Amino acid sequence: LPADATPSWLWVASLGDPGVTLEVPDEEARYLVRVCRARPGESVTLTDGRGSMGRARVIEIAPRVRLELESRETLRREREAIVLCGVPEGNRADWLVEKLAELGVSALQPVQCERGVWPEGEHRVARLERLAYAALRQSRRAFLMEVRRPVPLREALAGIAAPSALWSCDPQGRPAGECVPPPTGVAHGLVGPSSGFTADEATLALDRGAKCISLADGRLRTETAAIGWALWWAAGR
Amino acid sequence: LPADATPSWLWVASLGDPGVTLEVPDEEARYLVRVCRARPGESVTLTDGRGSMGRARVIEIAPRVRLELESRETLRREREAIVLCGVPEGNRADWLVEKLAELGVSALQPVQCERGVWPEGEHRVARLERLAYAALRQSRRAFLMEVRRPVPLREALAGIAAPSALWSCDPQGRPAGECVPPPTGVAHGLVGPSSGFTADEATLALDRGAKCISLADGRLRTETAAIGWALWWAAGR
Repeated sequence: LPADATPSWLWVASLGDPGVTLEVPDEEARYLVRVCRARPGESVTLTDGRGSMGRARVIEIAPRVRLELESRETLRREREAIVLCGVPEGNRADWLVEKLAELGVSALQPVQCERGVWPEGEHRVARLERLAYAALRQSRRAFLMEVRRPVPLREALAGIAAPSALWSCDPQGRPAGECVPPPTGVAHGLVGPSSGFTADEATLALDRGAKCISLADGRLRTETAAIGWALWWAAGR
Repeated sequence: LPADATPSWLWVASLGDPGVTLEVPDEEARYLVRVCRARPGESVTLTDGRGSMGRARVIEIAPRVRLELESRETLRREREAIVLCGVPEGNRADWLVEKLAELGVSALQPVQCERGVWPEGEHRVARLERLAYAALRQSRRAFLMEVRRPVPLREALAGIAAPSALWSCDPQGRPAGECVPPPTGVAHGLVGPSSGFTADEATLALDRGAKCISLADGRLRTETAAIGWALWWAAGR
């Protein structure tokens, strides 16, 4: 049997049905050839990042990577986490995205706050999306984390369907060890920007039914709190 | 009353008794003047990173920063966490140190494994120590995280006094949500290098009484698992 090339986990826009021949996007093709060192005949795992997964065989590497889909299955998510996050300092958004995607968060919703504004612009979003794709491969997930466009806090809070599943990360909150994440459904975690929420913003979250949760005994940076909340959620599966 | 300069949290080697005049190390002096923009008459918080904390007043800024200690108290730790960690990929050790220090971990013990070796050398350790000092200020802690010299896994495991308080981070382990971190005493978390432990190394940990704990439903990178374990521990206070 042909060996499975080591971390052969690729994203494709759409899988199609078994038997179909697939062309692989450039970045994924480079990854397959250079990092996984895949060769014709070897088998790889594919996902569309929306829960469909397939096994495919490498037909050819050059001039283009082509694969033949052999089987396909569809996964469903029993539970989801969405992180609403103020802007972290410096370039810490990069690893915020990497880590949240690694932990299986469904979506990162950047929120614009009085004391911290995410830079907007397509190249920024594209960069964060590339990091989310890389984390999908690395952690071998079937669901790609969505990186949403920044919206004002008020708008993000108004968009939450089930306000009962909203936690606001706050050093004054209830210790995480005493809080139980929901075993199913969608959970929302809210984290302030590096300079924190204003009193009005904190009230806005409470008015939406947010429960305050404290993740450690000290002050956490924005990105650490967001990852802490995601880990708390991930541990509750 | 003179205002407290914003994040005026400084490390000094030793506090001495109230009334004493203190000179501040260069890096801390730069932080106080450039970041906190402290001025004579303002008050700052000092720690020796070993649990002693003091309030001091700025006497002069130039040519050297000098402070007068006004009061002092000593804190004790009820619980401690030590992370034994294989080498992460690339430059991820930087933020591993920053985040573990931020979460109040007492010590990072790099462990040398068959599939991953920490680079040694004084400048490497010095860099990681600088990051630990910066995290101490940022998260306003009274205890500095110790960054130990790398030792072989076997030696690190043999050095653990209470093997019952040892967790090995392992995707096949018991979900973290079902494990309770100890409310007091020293807890040890063990994380493999990016390519994982060998079977022999995993057995070595089990022989020392390690309990296997799983922090999320997918594969985590070394640094993510280490931070995940520290957060699990921090949430259990």
